Amino acid sequence: MLEPLAHVGRDPATGGYVRDAWSPADLELREWFTGEAARRGLGLREDRNGNLWGWWGEPSPRRPGVVTGSHLDSVRQGGAYDGPLGVVSAFAALDLLKARGVTPAVPVGVACFTDEEGARFGVPCMGSRLLTGLLEPERALGLKDDDGDTLADVMAGAGREHRTIGRDDETLAMIGTFVELHVEQGRGLVTEGRPVGVARAIWPHGRWRFDFRGRADHAGTTRLADRDDPMVPFARMVLAARELAARHGVVATVGKVRVSPGNANAIPGLVSAWLDARGAGEAAVRALVADLTAEAPADVREESWTPVVDFDVALRDRLARVAGGDTPAPILATGAGHDAGILATAGVPSAMVFVRNPTGVSHSPDEHAERADCEAGVVALANVLEDLCR
Amino acid sequence: MLEPLAHVGRDPATGGYVRDAWSPADLELREWFTGEAARRGLGLREDRNGNLWGWWGEPSPRRPGVVTGSHLDSVRQGGAYDGPLGVVSAFAALDLLKARGVTPAVPVGVACFTDEEGARFGVPCMGSRLLTGLLEPERALGLKDDDGDTLADVMAGAGREHRTIGRDDETLAMIGTFVELHVEQGRGLVTEGRPVGVARAIWPHGRWRFDFRGRADHAGTTRLADRDDPMVPFARMVLAARELAARHGVVATVGKVRVSPGNANAIPGLVSAWLDARGAGEAAVRALVADLTAEAPADVREESWTPVVDFDVALRDRLARVAGGDTPAPILATGAGHDAGILATAGVPSAMVFVRNPTGVSHSPDEHAERADCEAGVVALANVLEDLCR
Repeated sequence: MLEPLAHVGRDPATGGYVRDAWSPADLELREWFTGEAARRGLGLREDRNGNLWGWWGEPSPRRPGVVTGSHLDSVRQGGAYDGPLGVVSAFAALDLLKARGVTPAVPVGVACFTDEEGARFGVPCMGSRLLTGLLEPERALGLKDDDGDTLADVMAGAGREHRTIGRDDETLAMIGTFVELHVEQGRGLVTEGRPVGVARAIWPHGRWRFDFRGRADHAGTTRLADRDDPMVPFARMVLAARELAARHGVVATVGKVRVSPGNANAIPGLVSAWLDARGAGEAAVRALVADLTAEAPADVREESWTPVVDFDVALRDRLARVAGGDTPAPILATGAGHDAGILATAGVPSAMVFVRNPTGVSHSPDEHAERADCEAGVVALANVLEDLCR
Repeated sequence: MLEPLAHVGRDPATGGYVRDAWSPADLELREWFTGEAARRGLGLREDRNGNLWGWWGEPSPRRPGVVTGSHLDSVRQGGAYDGPLGVVSAFAALDLLKARGVTPAVPVGVACFTDEEGARFGVPCMGSRLLTGLLEPERALGLKDDDGDTLADVMAGAGREHRTIGRDDETLAMIGTFVELHVEQGRGLVTEGRPVGVARAIWPHGRWRFDFRGRADHAGTTRLADRDDPMVPFARMVLAARELAARHGVVATVGKVRVSPGNANAIPGLVSAWLDARGAGEAAVRALVADLTAEAPADVREESWTPVVDFDVALRDRLARVAGGDTPAPILATGAGHDAGILATAGVPSAMVFVRNPTGVSHSPDEHAERADCEAGVVALANVLEDLCR
């Protein structure tokens, strides 16, 4: 079922996907979602923040539904599974429930969240953060993409109204439980030898921008002693981040850098670098960032912070029993953020189902899951939905 | 006289100039050149490589002229003087010769070379390298700018023919002597306490591309031990380049970096960095690059190399006597490449006049020269031309 999406936003040179929120590729994926919902007779809604909902049955605050789904946008040069697998599996699980003759006692919904990756504006889980009020509309509307376009600009380009984005209690009240299926982004299930698992927790994680300022000058005529070259302290920061991550037992990554003006024959005036740091404990992550901030001669700004998410224990154990088949599915922590984590933080009972990733590689064209494991994921998700909508 | 150019290609946010070859800003500057040549009744020619020539008198291979000028393109976020000062001073010096009632015995030309900085395609002095045959047309036509456009594309966009670029002996035969006036890009003249100097030599210099390849992966779920993150060896290379430059007594700069895919939440798969290295002696520059190449786990490619240029001694001493007024002008070496260096390498008798730069800063919006020093430069250049065209 991922096949019809295989060409959308694919870079033929690398095989990687570029599916920025509200880009033509994203709009094509949203059209696909609408078509799949219509084919199944689901009631389609787009909320004020651009998130899509396909409902089997009519939810209401008095009769909230069981919702499953994920996102369709991608990191730049990402893989085919991160996001789409959860949406495709949601539709497939509904088909399976119907084939089993299940008549749900509560409505069942399929969700597609907007801009989960934050590739365009730098803030991940934008759709679920706005929905739950964890991101202020003013802040979201102040963000700009690499072309200098604001969220208002790109929403207008897609024919959407930006003035009504923000916390949406009416939509939230329709969600009784949320279950997100996702390709695993590590090798926990490989170690366990199992195709499907359930999430225990999402590590606390954040993103910081380091601006190193120096003095732009000529690369040939400026003596070493006269230079104020921000590339040098930036390089020290990259190495320090790796060392400090090992010391504090967390992970730290610099994956995005902007050098200004970026002439090969000029000393730069500004190097901006983005640090992503995550770990099992908040204190260790905070200690890494504090150490790095103390060492680096840079202006440091926190761009996002997501505290630890411990998924509801009773719900998680119920999922593990039902999703695992004969023996309970293994329960795993993850370093990756998800919309399910945002909803859990906002108080919505939420859980996650993971599908085995043979290499653990993600956010890369090499991301992969075996067909048999994806099918096991659909069966597990259908079992979970059937159990929850009884 | 720089005033009419002050707005062209200026970034209002930084005050820096962005004047890529064949961009709308560059075309506007070329229009300005054409107008200035016409106002003075000069014969205008554009050669097959896009270089502009304004002739006072009719040159021929039997009666080659004395040519002065520089370029009008800019590094990105560059200053107002690097290039345009030489072109503006050329026109002003011609005006002064006419005011003095000089009747030149040979034709006098004003030149504007195309794409001196190489900001767009990465190869500096493209116009003079093509003219002299130091750059193969095939190689030039294979280069792409950041948008993926080739030189053929951008020349076609400007209504120019790309199939006839390359060595142009007919045009070269018109140049008896070439003198380029340029703002100094260091503080040699500040130390000397003089407004005007003359070039002894241009340091050998080159540009190398380092491609560090790793494995793109998820920033949150990939353990430090499992990472193959090219940002780390790249950072080591930046620090090693600085250390090795000090050890070998040369300068080395990393001013341009591309990180792919460039997601804040993903380990990059590729970091490309451009090294600019220069020094008084070729052996020391080559030793730095060899040491760095041996240390860095990267694919290294030489993108350009310009051997040392020692300007013609007799011509240089003649210039120093005439340009200096009462006492000979000081003679300085420079780490910056120039079209005059390319012409000298190709066997054209060439020389340079420098105008004092109070801070030494160049390739930056802060680049500056005092008005009185610029005027002294025009007088010196007029003296030189009058002497040479007798």
